[in-house]
Amino acid sequence: MNRYRFDLVTFLSDYGLGDEFVGVCHGVIMKIAPGLDIVDITHGISAQNVREGAMVLANSVAFMPQGVHLAVVDPGVGTDRLPVIVETAQGSVMVGPDNGVLALAISRLDGAIGARKIENPALMLPKVARTFHGRDVFAPAAAHIARGVPLEEFGSEIPVESLVGINVAEPRLHDDHFHASVLHIDRFGNLQMNVAPPQLAELGLTVGSMLEVRVEGRRNLVPLGASFSAVSEGELVATEDSYGLVALSVNCGSAADRLGANLGSSVIIGPPGSGATE
Amino acid sequence: MNRYRFDLVTFLSDYGLGDEFVGVCHGVIMKIAPGLDIVDITHGISAQNVREGAMVLANSVAFMPQGVHLAVVDPGVGTDRLPVIVETAQGSVMVGPDNGVLALAISRLDGAIGARKIENPALMLPKVARTFHGRDVFAPAAAHIARGVPLEEFGSEIPVESLVGINVAEPRLHDDHFHASVLHIDRFGNLQMNVAPPQLAELGLTVGSMLEVRVEGRRNLVPLGASFSAVSEGELVATEDSYGLVALSVNCGSAADRLGANLGSSVIIGPPGSGATE
Amino acid sequence: MNRYRFDLVTFLSDYGLGDEFVGVCHGVIMKIAPGLDIVDITHGISAQNVREGAMVLANSVAFMPQGVHLAVVDPGVGTDRLPVIVETAQGSVMVGPDNGVLALAISRLDGAIGARKIENPALMLPKVARTFHGRDVFAPAAAHIARGVPLEEFGSEIPVESLVGINVAEPRLHDDHFHASVLHIDRFGNLQMNVAPPQLAELGLTVGSMLEVRVEGRRNLVPLGASFSAVSEGELVATEDSYGLVALSVNCGSAADRLGANLGSSVIIGPPGSGATE
Repeated sequence: MNRYRFDLVTFLSDYGLGDEFVGVCHGVIMKIAPGLDIVDITHGISAQNVREGAMVLANSVAFMPQGVHLAVVDPGVGTDRLPVIVETAQGSVMVGPDNGVLALAISRLDGAIGARKIENPALMLPKVARTFHGRDVFAPAAAHIARGVPLEEFGSEIPVESLVGINVAEPRLHDDHFHASVLHIDRFGNLQMNVAPPQLAELGLTVGSMLEVRVEGRRNLVPLGASFSAVSEGELVATEDSYGLVALSVNCGSAADRLGANLGSSVIIGPPGSGATE
Repeated sequence: MNRYRFDLVTFLSDYGLGDEFVGVCHGVIMKIAPGLDIVDITHGISAQNVREGAMVLANSVAFMPQGVHLAVVDPGVGTDRLPVIVETAQGSVMVGPDNGVLALAISRLDGAIGARKIENPALMLPKVARTFHGRDVFAPAAAHIARGVPLEEFGSEIPVESLVGINVAEPRLHDDHFHASVLHIDRFGNLQMNVAPPQLAELGLTVGSMLEVRVEGRRNLVPLGASFSAVSEGELVATEDSYGLVALSVNCGSAADRLGANLGSSVIIGPPGSGATE
Repeated sequence: MNRYRFDLVTFLSDYGLGDEFVGVCHGVIMKIAPGLDIVDITHGISAQNVREGAMVLANSVAFMPQGVHLAVVDPGVGTDRLPVIVETAQGSVMVGPDNGVLALAISRLDGAIGARKIENPALMLPKVARTFHGRDVFAPAAAHIARGVPLEEFGSEIPVESLVGINVAEPRLHDDHFHASVLHIDRFGNLQMNVAPPQLAELGLTVGSMLEVRVEGRRNLVPLGASFSAVSEGELVATEDSYGLVALSVNCGSAADRLGANLGSSVIIGPPGSGATE
């Protein structure tokens, strides 16, 4: 039998904290598995944004202890998308809807080694609402797995190849510059781009170089610095962020406000004068 | 002696998470009862909205483990409203101000079997501020109860009949339609109404029926569906929500935005053409 | 050897809860010290506002159990500001950047009795990003201290006198009135001022007195009450707040909205007619 036992569940969702959704899921988990530790990765994923949930989960799981990773961003709740349990080679177990939200994290945890549907009503809450599988299906599954219920009891196996994947925006190299985009904006207004420093290095751009960054129709000259303090307060700077990607920041300010950029905004980045004819 | 012992306290308030209010209450609890688990139901109740707090607590307690349920929505802090402890037939103990915030949850926990005032200063913080009884009176009481202090030590008994109740908006049936109202709006913009599907069934409206829904002066034809996916993306749908009430939703969108509705907005709901003369 | 052991870490930051920053730090802590309790004091400190972080931490620590107090408001991350560990006479240990954010709390915990740099990479995450020392340096240090790693192993000692302090706005007495300012605005719109009731008493103003309060260019007559209920709903009142300071409030309303006041707004407060010539 395929049985795990964990002291910890992590939990990511788009539920926000304004409602009781997250708290009720915590209650459900603690009722099934008293004393379990729950780490809330975040519940601030934009409503129903599966891609954002997948990326944040992927960025986070490497920092988490082994455990059950519960992720619920589920625009298809109540439809025929599958509720799934996925075993990873790293040893953690993922629980969530099979809509891609788990996909990137599974890769970071060395890939899936087994997957099955959650279909046994005895391991759900007695009454399953069509619109709140987080509470009625996923949280109970996570808690039961943590306390050692064998995975076989949850439902039938599915091939890991059949799990739904997710496309991540990749930058396009065009002549001497990249067409990139804003992947994430944090609360400080830092703009994370889908370009990593080694990619800029291929264009000869390294720490100390000046970049030309075109966002929302304007060209900006921005130094590639080792940290925010490479520039004066209030100045734009590009740095390697804490996830190994290039971020645009304003030292002690907000790059999002300065540049008028939004999630998904396209960013053209290259050496000064690049792509002059576009 | 009337003594409980719990490993878990739940906590609901209108304190929000922008301040240290909730964190300080956690600290107070953990100082009195080290190692206790605390489940935050939510701290997003609208400021001083006792009715909303009462409803959210009532919707949540059934999903919580037995324990002390601490609820602080307390516009009368510093006045003569009583701080109370209420024992429920289900076995959990409620702590909060006697202003109605506990009332609906007590009913869900099979009713009150005993109540008393919190009046023993030895079981409060040494200095009680007039404006923060959550920290100075209620959180300490919850922690002391959890670690087994007999209820007799907190203060004198009061009759459970004297506990303050709360009125919940009930829908009015008028000819062939209901005058209902919006009880709750979640972060996805779903509008929870104070009408349940069995009430609509009395008007002959069941899954698959078309409803006429009048909100903010406009008439909308809305199918009563089994889930959001009964309609295309961007379309309005009425469903049974996760609390067994009728909710108005937009598939992959916000019904609150679409309909311009707010908490408490009145909603007239019936078959198409109903109440035509109003 | 100088070794502590704690079951609890408290955590305050300006990370907010919209991102995964806080959750990732929790994961890091739980991975190093499984089973530890974490109390989140708040993560709602305004971005990079060291002074606000210092004040909120100082107001909170007295209510916390002994433990490691982790505080990260760190506009200088990636520069040469020191990451530090500070032992307090009260027995708790502080962890954070040496930029003043710890300073006021250290005083409340009876002062520093020892301090050292965090410089041993073996007690940090393997890869330290320049922009996320909360995750890579401070959270690991807090967790290692809690599980008993001797402080000597973290880095070299520094004199406690060298720790960075912080200036708190003090009110100025001018003739018969104070020039004060708004220290804090909570979610109910209460305005906490940097004046305490004993200071008003020096001007002969006590509970029951009428105050003249000038904010944003307008004069308001406000009674100094024992609680909000000293005035009718919707009326302004000054009270002693839960931290022993004078707060301006509207009973069942928002003083911030009523007065148009912001964080740091100057407030002139005295008896009616005071400072008439200014």
